[in-house]
Amino acid sequence: MRARDLADPFPTVPLDADAAEAARLLVTRRLPGLVVTSADNRPYAVLGASQVLRFVLPGFLLDDPSSGRAYGEAAAAEVSARLSTRTVRDVLPADTTEIPAVDPDATPLEVAALMTQRHSPLVAVVDGQRLAGVVTATRVLAALLPRPE
Amino acid sequence: MRARDLADPFPTVPLDADAAEAARLLVTRRLPGLVVTSADNRPYAVLGASQVLRFVLPGFLLDDPSSGRAYGEAAAAEVSARLSTRTVRDVLPADTTEIPAVDPDATPLEVAALMTQRHSPLVAVVDGQRLAGVVTATRVLAALLPRPE
Repeated sequence: MRARDLADPFPTVPLDADAAEAARLLVTRRLPGLVVTSADNRPYAVLGASQVLRFVLPGFLLDDPSSGRAYGEAAAAEVSARLSTRTVRDVLPADTTEIPAVDPDATPLEVAALMTQRHSPLVAVVDGQRLAGVVTATRVLAALLPRPE
Repeated sequence: MRARDLADPFPTVPLDADAAEAARLLVTRRLPGLVVTSADNRPYAVLGASQVLRFVLPGFLLDDPSSGRAYGEAAAAEVSARLSTRTVRDVLPADTTEIPAVDPDATPLEVAALMTQRHSPLVAVVDGQRLAGVVTATRVLAALLPRPE
C-alpha cells in the first residue's frame, strides 16, 4: 500500500479566499483541515480548525481559558468577526513554511512519520505539482493497524 | 450557547483497554480522539490518532520521514505489532496530566481557548465527575462562526 492508495479527494481553498468561508467549509464538511493553494494553483499549506481557533481567540484567553466564562454570545460574535475581513493567508501562522507533502509512492510509515513530525492533521499527496489527494491521520493509522483476528 | 449544547456523546475506553482495539475504534468511527477513563470511571485523558502514531513510530523515522520509503508492508506490520501487547495507558504520553475538561456551563470561547491551549482535538464536558459529552474543534468553531448572510 502506498500514499496514492490512502489519498482521498479533499476540497482546496486559495490563499486569497475569504477566511470565514474557508472556516465554514471546514465545519460543514467536518474536515480535519483544508489544503490551501497558492496563486499558481500549487498546494501551499494545510489549514486546520485549530489554526482558525488560534487566530480568532485573543491572547488573554489562551493564557487563561477560564476567563472566557464572562464572555457570552456578543463577545463570540465579536471574536468571529475577526475572520470576516480576513483571507486564508492572514489566518495561516506566520511561520508557515512548506506544506507537509509526499509523492504518490510514499509508504504508510513515511506518511505517518511526516504527519507526526509536522504536527499536521493532513499530509498532501502531490504528483509532480498536482494535488492527487490528502491522507488523514485516521486513514494512515488504519493502514498501519494489524487486521482484527 | 454553552458547553452542554456543544457536547456530543463519544465512546470512552478504560486506561487498561487493549491499545490496538482503541486505535481500531478511532479508525472505524473516524473520531478525532477518544476519552480515556480511569479505574474509578472518571474521565482521565484524551487519546488522539496522532498520539497513537507517535507511539508506534520508531524515533529515526520521526527525525527523517523520508527514510520510511524503504519500509514496506512487513515493516508496517512490525511497527503496528508494538500496539498489540500494550494498553491505552502505555500509549499515552508520559507527561499526560489532567484531561482538558470544562463544566457544562462553559462558554464556547472558554472551550475554544482550552482546546487551543492544550493542543487537544477534544474537550471533555464533565458534570460533577460524570462525562456529559465531548466537544470537537469543528463543533466549537461552528459555534463561533458568523452565520452566513
